[in-house]
Amino acid sequence: MINKRKPDATIKTDERCPVEATAEIIGRKWISLIIRDLANGPQRFGELQHSMRISPRILSMRLQELEQNGLISRQVFAEVPPRTEYTLTEKGELFLPLIDEMRRVGKQILAQPVDSKS
Amino acid sequence: MINKRKPDATIKTDERCPVEATAEIIGRKWISLIIRDLANGPQRFGELQHSMRISPRILSMRLQELEQNGLISRQVFAEVPPRTEYTLTEKGELFLPLIDEMRRVGKQILAQPVDSKS
Repeated sequence: MINKRKPDATIKTDERCPVEATAEIIGRKWISLIIRDLANGPQRFGELQHSMRISPRILSMRLQELEQNGLISRQVFAEVPPRTEYTLTEKGELFLPLIDEMRRVGKQILAQPVDSKS
Repeated sequence: MINKRKPDATIKTDERCPVEATAEIIGRKWISLIIRDLANGPQRFGELQHSMRISPRILSMRLQELEQNGLISRQVFAEVPPRTEYTLTEKGELFLPLIDEMRRVGKQILAQPVDSKS
């Protein structure tokens, strides 16, 4: 059943649709790919950058957003050169089944002919 | 298991990660909300616009994209005034379990305290 706004309820701006709440977080390409890459454990900045083929500036911005949203944590190790690792928090791990579902749907989409207009 | 590019495979630009393929489609806020709204059956332009509180111009663009990607179909009824309905195609319905998963995750996210920084 779809979660539509109930017609008998006053629409308030703080009455959030959960699909929309998720879309606001995951609905940015790099965000889902960062969570995908952190699914198997901590990753370093360079590892993420290599996997995602993304500019350091954009990756840095996205990691900061994820940290601010409490989805990832950053740990700096006092080594030479300093090592920084990013890890999913408990809140971030809530998104893992969603990433799995994205993978499942993506496989179906990719298996379809390119031109599948109706 | 995370779907990383295999180190023993030559990286080709057409070797698509299924998570990324899904992110490219669903990773735009309005797209997931349109699919959410069409989950229960055909909807008219005005119904979608009212539910999503989106500008007609943006909604029109997103609906065209979805039609071009083969996720929705458009049917015009010869009435006065003409009635246009949008329906999920079989390909579009592939995304329904993903929308459900977004809803499930969104409920968990919304149930958390606003400031959940680690």
